[in-house]
Amino acid sequence: MPSATFLVAAPDQPGLVARLSGFFYQLALNITESSNHSEESRFFMRLVVDLGKETTTRRSIEESFGALCKELSGEWSVGYEDVRARVAIMVTKDPACLYDLVLRQRNGELPCEIPVIISNHAALEPVAESFRIPFFSLPVTTDTKPVQERHVLELLKRLHIDLVVLARYMQVLSDDFLRLAPPVINIHHGFLPAFQGAKPYHQAYARGVKMIGATAHYATKDLDQGPIIEQDVARVGHHMTPDELVRVGRDVERVVLARAVRAHLERRVLVEGRRTVLL
Amino acid sequence: MPSATFLVAAPDQPGLVARLSGFFYQLALNITESSNHSEESRFFMRLVVDLGKETTTRRSIEESFGALCKELSGEWSVGYEDVRARVAIMVTKDPACLYDLVLRQRNGELPCEIPVIISNHAALEPVAESFRIPFFSLPVTTDTKPVQERHVLELLKRLHIDLVVLARYMQVLSDDFLRLAPPVINIHHGFLPAFQGAKPYHQAYARGVKMIGATAHYATKDLDQGPIIEQDVARVGHHMTPDELVRVGRDVERVVLARAVRAHLERRVLVEGRRTVLL
Amino acid sequence: MPSATFLVAAPDQPGLVARLSGFFYQLALNITESSNHSEESRFFMRLVVDLGKETTTRRSIEESFGALCKELSGEWSVGYEDVRARVAIMVTKDPACLYDLVLRQRNGELPCEIPVIISNHAALEPVAESFRIPFFSLPVTTDTKPVQERHVLELLKRLHIDLVVLARYMQVLSDDFLRLAPPVINIHHGFLPAFQGAKPYHQAYARGVKMIGATAHYATKDLDQGPIIEQDVARVGHHMTPDELVRVGRDVERVVLARAVRAHLERRVLVEGRRTVLL
Amino acid sequence: MPSATFLVAAPDQPGLVARLSGFFYQLALNITESSNHSEESRFFMRLVVDLGKETTTRRSIEESFGALCKELSGEWSVGYEDVRARVAIMVTKDPACLYDLVLRQRNGELPCEIPVIISNHAALEPVAESFRIPFFSLPVTTDTKPVQERHVLELLKRLHIDLVVLARYMQVLSDDFLRLAPPVINIHHGFLPAFQGAKPYHQAYARGVKMIGATAHYATKDLDQGPIIEQDVARVGHHMTPDELVRVGRDVERVVLARAVRAHLERRVLVEGRRTVLL
Repeated sequence: MPSATFLVAAPDQPGLVARLSGFFYQLALNITESSNHSEESRFFMRLVVDLGKETTTRRSIEESFGALCKELSGEWSVGYEDVRARVAIMVTKDPACLYDLVLRQRNGELPCEIPVIISNHAALEPVAESFRIPFFSLPVTTDTKPVQERHVLELLKRLHIDLVVLARYMQVLSDDFLRLAPPVINIHHGFLPAFQGAKPYHQAYARGVKMIGATAHYATKDLDQGPIIEQDVARVGHHMTPDELVRVGRDVERVVLARAVRAHLERRVLVEGRRTVLL
Repeated sequence: MPSATFLVAAPDQPGLVARLSGFFYQLALNITESSNHSEESRFFMRLVVDLGKETTTRRSIEESFGALCKELSGEWSVGYEDVRARVAIMVTKDPACLYDLVLRQRNGELPCEIPVIISNHAALEPVAESFRIPFFSLPVTTDTKPVQERHVLELLKRLHIDLVVLARYMQVLSDDFLRLAPPVINIHHGFLPAFQGAKPYHQAYARGVKMIGATAHYATKDLDQGPIIEQDVARVGHHMTPDELVRVGRDVERVVLARAVRAHLERRVLVEGRRTVLL
Repeated sequence: MPSATFLVAAPDQPGLVARLSGFFYQLALNITESSNHSEESRFFMRLVVDLGKETTTRRSIEESFGALCKELSGEWSVGYEDVRARVAIMVTKDPACLYDLVLRQRNGELPCEIPVIISNHAALEPVAESFRIPFFSLPVTTDTKPVQERHVLELLKRLHIDLVVLARYMQVLSDDFLRLAPPVINIHHGFLPAFQGAKPYHQAYARGVKMIGATAHYATKDLDQGPIIEQDVARVGHHMTPDELVRVGRDVERVVLARAVRAHLERRVLVEGRRTVLL
Repeated sequence: MPSATFLVAAPDQPGLVARLSGFFYQLALNITESSNHSEESRFFMRLVVDLGKETTTRRSIEESFGALCKELSGEWSVGYEDVRARVAIMVTKDPACLYDLVLRQRNGELPCEIPVIISNHAALEPVAESFRIPFFSLPVTTDTKPVQERHVLELLKRLHIDLVVLARYMQVLSDDFLRLAPPVINIHHGFLPAFQGAKPYHQAYARGVKMIGATAHYATKDLDQGPIIEQDVARVGHHMTPDELVRVGRDVERVVLARAVRAHLERRVLVEGRRTVLL
């Protein structure tokens, strides 16, 4: 008995919890998890519903739920437990986040398929191979960027990719790419909004901070400005060189990225302007 | 427009979210926050409702909500934003947690009154006085314990106390006391279940642990075994003497105790056997 | 048998540990703690020495140690366990950090005297009074700032103040003041370098960060740019309003400030450019 | 110019820092890092020395340093940067810690060789193979345990193993084995001393704790009682099933194990009774 997860964002108005949960009650579908949040006249809700014996078709549930949401002037989306998201991982040379994501997917922590790894470099092909995941090496220069991005987009489309994860992909994606691609999650190796841009650990060292961090966010056309999904930090000291900050930071990065990807896959993340709501 | 917070625990059954939220929808009362949790055939829900212009009386809402919960074989309770809980703080000689709780109540972090401080020792009377809170010094020996506890109980009753907080009260309360008293929250200066009993920091030192912690729990007749509400830890090192562990631990204790008291006062805590559910 | 704590910063060169520790060995003074650090041709060392029966005078030790450091082209300072630092606390209206510092001083966590509390506002006079600490209310406007700062400086001088702690003093100190005053430690309620300037919690809310922090640093003429002594963070979520961030942040602020003041008083902090070394 | 790291433990006595650092000064060897600690009449010191052009042989330094330590009634050991420790990893079926250790070794975080992976099960052979590390599958039953352990010991000896890391090796090692083997570091998936023995996450769930942890310790004949090297925790909640505690705990385990192994390899860990000193 698979479950379905519904996400709703709507203008706040009386009776939303009752009407949304009542919808499933009338269909005799049990709500196994629900949570909601209101802020400044906006309402957000996540409902996990046991589909039971599926006496009603998914399409028919979607149609009537869509009609209800339209009535409430709300947006909604749904995902099904038995339809696993297809995730493309993009990398350059650093294997830490790549290994981390694949191992978590393999042991069941990340409910998704990983049908492809795309890189602008050949370095990580053996890692992809050791897990028998198709690997595409698509090098890029300033000149070839538009062409390369078009290739990547075609690949994403052909493989029905639902989510792109930049696991230390050392290239800035163009606005055009981001407009046409599925959602893109990036890991920034700094505690945003501090240390935007390049070499955040060297910036952190120079400033003498006592903690460093990492930030997972949706990529948007404004570099390092996208809605933050997850952050964490680690304590550092004056005795650590920038290289040691890199080492300590690597542990934070991969945990933060994995948590963000997991939250997205479990349909817990709603974007509201520059912020995210995690339900 | 004050709000009311309802807590429900019931056997899990289809339609609970819809029926409980529908109850308030029919009364035209807006749910501003809600969360729920199911585990092993048990269901828990917290609902915060805006009482609006209170066209329906509180008593009448309670009666019909009680009837619904009875139908669902559930237990429930309600608290009102404008009826502040009355909290008694019990102490011995250590002022840290006492100051902390009173200051948080004064700056609005803890939604309660503190009409009394009770101690088995006179040491902290000046602290109580500086905040103009009535202070009762009720010394206790093994022989006088039954009598002293009866005095404390009378005091709690006379002052309509809803919650007792043991802010480093260095006495074990008897089963009889705990049966007759309102809920009692205790702070244990160890990361339970490790280091139960006396001198947890000395135990921690001897064992060479690298982190120490504190645990806030409901007091039950089994010492240090009550349902845990909140815990936290701090990193320590080989260079710290037991006295320094005490100092570091004190910071953890007061934060953990304050969070637990706040969660209780906001009606977020449900006890289920030896565990708590925090909604 | 009191101890003395020596701090040395010098150009790195062979034999520094041996020569500095050998100095005390020849005087038959036992080193009870020592630590050192080198980076980019700079060397830093902290030595705690048991003065024993003080057969040699402190002045004579200082003279010969000074001669050694001169030979090494180094700077040095010394503090004696039985000569407690005199700390002035400056506040405005928020009592949290003030209570925290005074209580820690009273229970022995902060090895210092607090002979005065200075404010630009009368609000916290009762707190000072409850601890019987002299309180000076010196209001300030843009026009009277030079005069007020001169009064504060005179007060600091007359009371032989060694350290000024800004415990949420809501005024920017002038360059002139900082040049003439003893060292000044400030608590910034943001995780610097993110969220410099005013209303950091509102900035943090708008940016949707998942953790907030606080930073204790030496005040310098560049606002919020001084060398960082200590930082820490707390996890926050989308459901927290800016007011709730303030509440959570307050707990971080006072712990961070207390740790920084303690490190300074124990003579563990060396400033090197924009960074600090903590030994 | 490789470095050597010396570790000393001796009865506390005047002049130890001066004499130990003076030793290297006289040999014109520069100390690049040093730290020491005293407790209850015991003294511990770590010295990292730049061997420069090695005009004196290592053997000759060791002989005279040994003579000095003998004079001080102390124990000592030395390791050379260019002689990398040889580490055997023992596993059963869980790949998380294994991948983690190998990847850290590969990217330079762990200064060691990993010449062998030993298991009581064949499951992880492909992982070993993907990294081209020899893998030995040595199954064990209650009856064959003495024989199997003898095989493991032979293997450790033949391969000149300096350290054994139990990366979720699900077997208890016998006293005999531990007496004859090089040092053994184990990861326990509980916050010792809480939750000793089997199924710590299930114990943690039943007790309703709010944080779970992991502990890396030297294996001794008393199960889960060996000297603790490193611990850490993660926050959990009532909504997490034991399986989810396992998932969260896995992240803590591998970080804690890696930190402990790194500290051991950098010769920072001294065992003193049931405690460790980390310099």
